[in-house]
Amino acid sequence: MTEPGRFISFEGIDGSGKTTCVESAARWLQQRGIRVTLTREPGGTPVGEAIRAILLNTPHPMLPETETMLMFAARHEHVHRVILPALNTGAWVLCDRFIDATLAYQGAGRGVSAERIASLMRWVHPTLKPDITLLMHVNLDVAAARIGGRGERDRFEAEADSFHRRVSDAYLRIAATEPHRVHRIDGSGTPEAVRLRVESTLASAIAGLT
Amino acid sequence: MTEPGRFISFEGIDGSGKTTCVESAARWLQQRGIRVTLTREPGGTPVGEAIRAILLNTPHPMLPETETMLMFAARHEHVHRVILPALNTGAWVLCDRFIDATLAYQGAGRGVSAERIASLMRWVHPTLKPDITLLMHVNLDVAAARIGGRGERDRFEAEADSFHRRVSDAYLRIAATEPHRVHRIDGSGTPEAVRLRVESTLASAIAGLT
Repeated sequence: MTEPGRFISFEGIDGSGKTTCVESAARWLQQRGIRVTLTREPGGTPVGEAIRAILLNTPHPMLPETETMLMFAARHEHVHRVILPALNTGAWVLCDRFIDATLAYQGAGRGVSAERIASLMRWVHPTLKPDITLLMHVNLDVAAARIGGRGERDRFEAEADSFHRRVSDAYLRIAATEPHRVHRIDGSGTPEAVRLRVESTLASAIAGLT
Repeated sequence: MTEPGRFISFEGIDGSGKTTCVESAARWLQQRGIRVTLTREPGGTPVGEAIRAILLNTPHPMLPETETMLMFAARHEHVHRVILPALNTGAWVLCDRFIDATLAYQGAGRGVSAERIASLMRWVHPTLKPDITLLMHVNLDVAAARIGGRGERDRFEAEADSFHRRVSDAYLRIAATEPHRVHRIDGSGTPEAVRLRVESTLASAIAGLT
């Protein structure tokens, strides 16, 4: 029987260096002969990407609970069609955002209660949780300067500073609450500096897995 | 204080005469001086209509639970932005499909358990239920002949006969279980014949409201 793969999620606000983190981790694992499935949320399936387009780009108003439910609709398709099947073949799944993003963005950011989020989590993926979560963290000023240089902003990037503050604080609280799973990485500096931190954090996180 | 309006849902398989039923009921109520809000599911809001487009027309595969969650995402926006606000102004809300459609299509049709559907219902609208539901019923042959004459079929219309049979049977079971709320109407015959049946059924259903 194939040993199931490991599930690694990547979290952080926009501009935190999350993309560099995902790419560095994927390359590092592949160099060690590990088969990697790289995916993202919201999205990761054709239907999930259609839902992502609504979530990120609809010009229409949307209630926080509707946004939360759309996130979980996309997640259901993703978990059951992509993540679990890949893990079952022994691949390691690297996912750009997962459940912690819902707690940070829809929970702390939009005000949906943790209890209501947990209820949908039990509906969609009662047992699946990341083995390792890498949380990229930078000051909000650094993140804002980085995304300021990008093009059109999506519905989340366009939110007020206070929103990004609540999201960032929520991520730090999650990391403080679950230090064994969630590893905070300093995302400031050059992509090369970030890459080195990601590799050493990932190596020690994997060493700590049971 | 304004007395809240009544909430009437319209159910039935495609080709059952449901559209004639909704239009007849709206006209009959308006002729009696009742302010009517006409809406539909999935949809009824800009975000809900974007979700409807995925539900009805995506060419990609979709798991039954994902479909169910998308239905409830659209419903959340609809209930809280359209239905409840309208009822609170004293308008009567006439809704083309509501919760019974989820039990019939996603439940009986796709195999999602009633318990799982009830759990999302409690999340989205724990207290809202139609005061009156008019269920249009025709034999599957009649329905198939009617929709055969229409253009392109959506994801539900394109399903096998056995799917429509399960949906139709589920509607009849709901009507048998909740006879005080759900009123079955024979949808066969001419639009004029259906209209007369709808009007008399609606009149007696309203008379029976407490």
